[in-house]
Amino acid sequence: MYRLGRNISVHLFGSSHGPCVGCIIEGLPKGTVISADRIASEMELRKPKEGIGTPRKEKDIVEITGDINGKTIGGPVTMIIRNENTHGRSYSQFKDKPRPGHADLPALMRFRNFDIRGGGPFSGRLTAPLVAAGAVMKDILRSKGIEINAFARSIGGVEDPEKNVSDAQLTDTRARTPALDEKMKKEILKASEDGDSVGGVVECIVTGLPIGFGGIWFEGLDSEIASAIFSIPAVKGIEFGKGFELSKMKGSESNDPYTIVNNKIVAEKNDMGGIVGGMSNGMPVVFKVAFKPTPSITKEQSTVDLKTMTQTSIKIEGRHDPCIVPRAVSVVEAVTAIVIADQAKEAGLFDQ
Amino acid sequence: MYRLGRNISVHLFGSSHGPCVGCIIEGLPKGTVISADRIASEMELRKPKEGIGTPRKEKDIVEITGDINGKTIGGPVTMIIRNENTHGRSYSQFKDKPRPGHADLPALMRFRNFDIRGGGPFSGRLTAPLVAAGAVMKDILRSKGIEINAFARSIGGVEDPEKNVSDAQLTDTRARTPALDEKMKKEILKASEDGDSVGGVVECIVTGLPIGFGGIWFEGLDSEIASAIFSIPAVKGIEFGKGFELSKMKGSESNDPYTIVNNKIVAEKNDMGGIVGGMSNGMPVVFKVAFKPTPSITKEQSTVDLKTMTQTSIKIEGRHDPCIVPRAVSVVEAVTAIVIADQAKEAGLFDQ
Amino acid sequence: MYRLGRNISVHLFGSSHGPCVGCIIEGLPKGTVISADRIASEMELRKPKEGIGTPRKEKDIVEITGDINGKTIGGPVTMIIRNENTHGRSYSQFKDKPRPGHADLPALMRFRNFDIRGGGPFSGRLTAPLVAAGAVMKDILRSKGIEINAFARSIGGVEDPEKNVSDAQLTDTRARTPALDEKMKKEILKASEDGDSVGGVVECIVTGLPIGFGGIWFEGLDSEIASAIFSIPAVKGIEFGKGFELSKMKGSESNDPYTIVNNKIVAEKNDMGGIVGGMSNGMPVVFKVAFKPTPSITKEQSTVDLKTMTQTSIKIEGRHDPCIVPRAVSVVEAVTAIVIADQAKEAGLFDQ
Amino acid sequence: MYRLGRNISVHLFGSSHGPCVGCIIEGLPKGTVISADRIASEMELRKPKEGIGTPRKEKDIVEITGDINGKTIGGPVTMIIRNENTHGRSYSQFKDKPRPGHADLPALMRFRNFDIRGGGPFSGRLTAPLVAAGAVMKDILRSKGIEINAFARSIGGVEDPEKNVSDAQLTDTRARTPALDEKMKKEILKASEDGDSVGGVVECIVTGLPIGFGGIWFEGLDSEIASAIFSIPAVKGIEFGKGFELSKMKGSESNDPYTIVNNKIVAEKNDMGGIVGGMSNGMPVVFKVAFKPTPSITKEQSTVDLKTMTQTSIKIEGRHDPCIVPRAVSVVEAVTAIVIADQAKEAGLFDQ
Repeated sequence: MYRLGRNISVHLFGSSHGPCVGCIIEGLPKGTVISADRIASEMELRKPKEGIGTPRKEKDIVEITGDINGKTIGGPVTMIIRNENTHGRSYSQFKDKPRPGHADLPALMRFRNFDIRGGGPFSGRLTAPLVAAGAVMKDILRSKGIEINAFARSIGGVEDPEKNVSDAQLTDTRARTPALDEKMKKEILKASEDGDSVGGVVECIVTGLPIGFGGIWFEGLDSEIASAIFSIPAVKGIEFGKGFELSKMKGSESNDPYTIVNNKIVAEKNDMGGIVGGMSNGMPVVFKVAFKPTPSITKEQSTVDLKTMTQTSIKIEGRHDPCIVPRAVSVVEAVTAIVIADQAKEAGLFDQ
Repeated sequence: MYRLGRNISVHLFGSSHGPCVGCIIEGLPKGTVISADRIASEMELRKPKEGIGTPRKEKDIVEITGDINGKTIGGPVTMIIRNENTHGRSYSQFKDKPRPGHADLPALMRFRNFDIRGGGPFSGRLTAPLVAAGAVMKDILRSKGIEINAFARSIGGVEDPEKNVSDAQLTDTRARTPALDEKMKKEILKASEDGDSVGGVVECIVTGLPIGFGGIWFEGLDSEIASAIFSIPAVKGIEFGKGFELSKMKGSESNDPYTIVNNKIVAEKNDMGGIVGGMSNGMPVVFKVAFKPTPSITKEQSTVDLKTMTQTSIKIEGRHDPCIVPRAVSVVEAVTAIVIADQAKEAGLFDQ
Repeated sequence: MYRLGRNISVHLFGSSHGPCVGCIIEGLPKGTVISADRIASEMELRKPKEGIGTPRKEKDIVEITGDINGKTIGGPVTMIIRNENTHGRSYSQFKDKPRPGHADLPALMRFRNFDIRGGGPFSGRLTAPLVAAGAVMKDILRSKGIEINAFARSIGGVEDPEKNVSDAQLTDTRARTPALDEKMKKEILKASEDGDSVGGVVECIVTGLPIGFGGIWFEGLDSEIASAIFSIPAVKGIEFGKGFELSKMKGSESNDPYTIVNNKIVAEKNDMGGIVGGMSNGMPVVFKVAFKPTPSITKEQSTVDLKTMTQTSIKIEGRHDPCIVPRAVSVVEAVTAIVIADQAKEAGLFDQ
Repeated sequence: MYRLGRNISVHLFGSSHGPCVGCIIEGLPKGTVISADRIASEMELRKPKEGIGTPRKEKDIVEITGDINGKTIGGPVTMIIRNENTHGRSYSQFKDKPRPGHADLPALMRFRNFDIRGGGPFSGRLTAPLVAAGAVMKDILRSKGIEINAFARSIGGVEDPEKNVSDAQLTDTRARTPALDEKMKKEILKASEDGDSVGGVVECIVTGLPIGFGGIWFEGLDSEIASAIFSIPAVKGIEFGKGFELSKMKGSESNDPYTIVNNKIVAEKNDMGGIVGGMSNGMPVVFKVAFKPTPSITKEQSTVDLKTMTQTSIKIEGRHDPCIVPRAVSVVEAVTAIVIADQAKEAGLFDQ
């Protein structure tokens, strides 16, 4: 199913080269304000930036139905985004020659008559309504003191060295500072000029969750965030707090001892990334997400011809992002916001 | 909810220090053979091993109801495992003094009257019925040519260097070889003698999935595996294939080109870990799971007294595993088997 | 949630006086043919008929997205129906003076800022996308030998006396024959001239289900049909086979004995309406649905003024159906088709 | 699935002639009191009464696990009821000769190796844990001012004539008064002496729901009650308020006008049975449920021999209730309580 969430849910529809993409949002607290401006500004952040993004340009105007003068009335809210700049000319060859690293091969095996243009229903284009829905979720969470911010921790070989991140500027690459933005841009441009692509790591920080927020067993906060994050195309790993590094540590080092500051319980450090037992321990929830390089590169690649069942090669033309990280930052924030809004509703946070 | 799976599902019940733990399994293909022997041998693997595991000993005999002479008849199958060796004497102090790294603090904040003995419903004890259910799933998957095998990739500072893992012996630490087992055991014993604990990495390999197996968007194979894996206590990270390493690579390096071998499509290498677009590309599905060190250590630790809201310290006595990895290997296999059996049913694999 | 179905599901969106209504269909068997003509002809049947239906006219053109040249490709199929003939002038008074028999009072109490025009999200207008989705379901079921047919068993005091119904003509009132159609029309017109309305009974017959089709306990065929049927506005009762009459019978009368005809097992009669234990016994599934009279009447009615909390009266103008039964017949077929397609997918009928 | 409910859910397990039946309850408000006495007294009501019920006697002691000293702690609560009085000797013949009116034929066609003893998983025995769970739900609803009471409206030809039912005594047949109890008992005994059985109608009244309680479309209060009611074995019809009678009325008669009494909005009458648009209008929710006669009768009946595919006849010995209504009254209350508790949690009633 294309549905994320149980209490508040987002249901995607549409495809990359059809008339539209969109989503139905259900379960929003009654009277939720749907701000067209806030949605538009989040959509802007997801758009490809000059030079470092795909030349496919979409206006991404979000039509909203189901609310009354910007306020929800209890029923579902539908968002529709028209596809305008669709020219799928360059896709037909991949129907027989699946692109390495793409969903082509499994999708062609699984779905008869699969529309490979733009990746069809698998397309990153469906992250547009996710970001629109995420904008609404971020708004309702902010009103409860919960903030979600992500940034580019690394792109290719360039890594942000700062350990204690407090805030991030909105640069083109979503690097935290203009200086890092400059370096990461170069990394992307260099790969792009070589007809190649690069990956990177997005880091996301959630603040304001009360101690005990989350769920247990199969509804743990980390379980549900991880599940949603892996639905983003190109994600290959996630770790909370020190993640894989923890596996090499001693318990006496990794445990985050508690103390009292200003009459509040806090952990002295945050190696756990704010989650123990599937629930918030009151520290910021911090996680890192590994993105692989965009599989679409213009370099010649080896693949197979499904008709003749022989080895062959392809060169991918089309329009592509040489690095998906700058745009993926918005998507990481959006799916995280949907998961947390969903659990916040279950926890009764919106009843107060 | 304590339920994993949609088409075939496993629903946990019970708690660490109550009369029993268990699970209800629904949706098994009709006529599934429930082999008490196979279940018993999987339960054996999960048991703590002399010296490197907790001294709490449980017989873990699995009572099965709902089948007829070992075959399912279409209704739910219930498995009940009695708790016998429960003496919760040493837990009462943690009701006011939450143990760092444990679920105590969020659980006490979230649930009134929470039974902290053995972690109550959060306890690793609930992985016992998971492993019993997983044994059934592994059996029905094996009958369709799908095998799931996990092993200890690393424990503390000891790492298995083998890149191309083909099979693994069943040693005490679940290291792949007796030599590695020896080293990893020492790592655990050393930590144990210091009143400390160590973490590690479990690697899991799934073979035999057809190309296109899995789902897309929020039901992707990686999304659902990740979600289930994070429900295992102490997991802090997961990566598929080369995972975080991919974020530093070029697309021309990371893409796995296709070729033909014996008239079958295969990828030339497996950096993607067998999954693209949430579906199998026909290569083995390979993922690594990071486990933090067991939070229960006998060293003195700083924490807070919830009654007085002042800083204090605790020493944890009780019975604990100085490293959870050797036992967690079975649990990783079990939840992976449940996820894959669930998706296999959706894909109609059991109809044939 | 506005979602019906688990394996094949229909998710409604939109509202009576917003820009559109529609639905997302998920889980259709791959390669399902989406016939625009078949959908259009079902939409035609649901339209109000001259004289006996509301004067609100809608073109009800169904825009379809997500398929390729009329065949599904595995992803969701979205159907959008524009609202054109919306003039909500006559609704404002009901915001303070809830109409008896309508959802106004509970809806106003439950949802702040509820858009009462046309019933908002509660409107019968949302049955339009249900009928469009039902057309697709009826098609895929027909290809498996399963047929769903409903007709008007009674309207007001006029009842169809035929016990052994084999087929029905498509008259304006959905009476089975032109003669009955004439009588039922008169019953509706008489009520309409008095500024009043009438109810009726819809009977639905499903043929071609294999013995054992359905589910047990909370997924029984009767449970799921009943649940879907009560979602249709104005339904007040459902009975299978002889229904309430069975409560006055002896077991020796009510049991349907089995016999062999043409080497097939059949029941000698069908008092059970084809369902025992939540599953088909191979006989046609037959059930009756009671519809109350349309609550919108032009006669003066007593109600309360929510602002002053005093008794008052209203006269409803607007555009309404004096009897909902003729249009509801299509909706009964549609939701039944969705439920049965959903269970058929679970049963693996579409895998063959 | 054997699961009822979304927010608070009851998951059944076990079978009639296996070691036990039981249920897992999830989602109970934290700190819910689990009263063993209250559960025992509800179980007592469901037991067969001397003369008019089956001679199979079960102690029906409910073992509870997952709570602490009678209070829930946030995790699932499991209830286990041992089967003691199981002697399935008389069932073997039905494996080839399905009993008319029973689930035998579809169950045998659907499930290979189906354990026909006592109806296996289809057995009314599974209503025992439903009633145990219902006892808990009734308690938590009562604490919010919501009461659920059912009684025998009719048994065979004996009908309770009282229109305005205010309360009911707990007689053996669950008739409202000792005089009616006497008559209904005679009706049952007469059928029993003839080797026959009778059906009846259970009426259920829910008071204390706030205006607007319920859901819309596929989660309407009537949709969810109807679905749960049809899961009870032998149910063949349900109607709310005047139900099928409404289909013959005019809108000017059927609409329930609103008025003000003691500064509260009430309807002047309750033909709608308290539900409009899937939600409570503040009046008592009233519905009637039709039960068919118990299909097990000792009279000779015609059926088929599945091995030879020829007509044959059977005589059913075993132990049976000649009328299920007296025991079904408790089950109607129980499933209604589960549905309403589930929706009450969604509505936030337990947060206050």
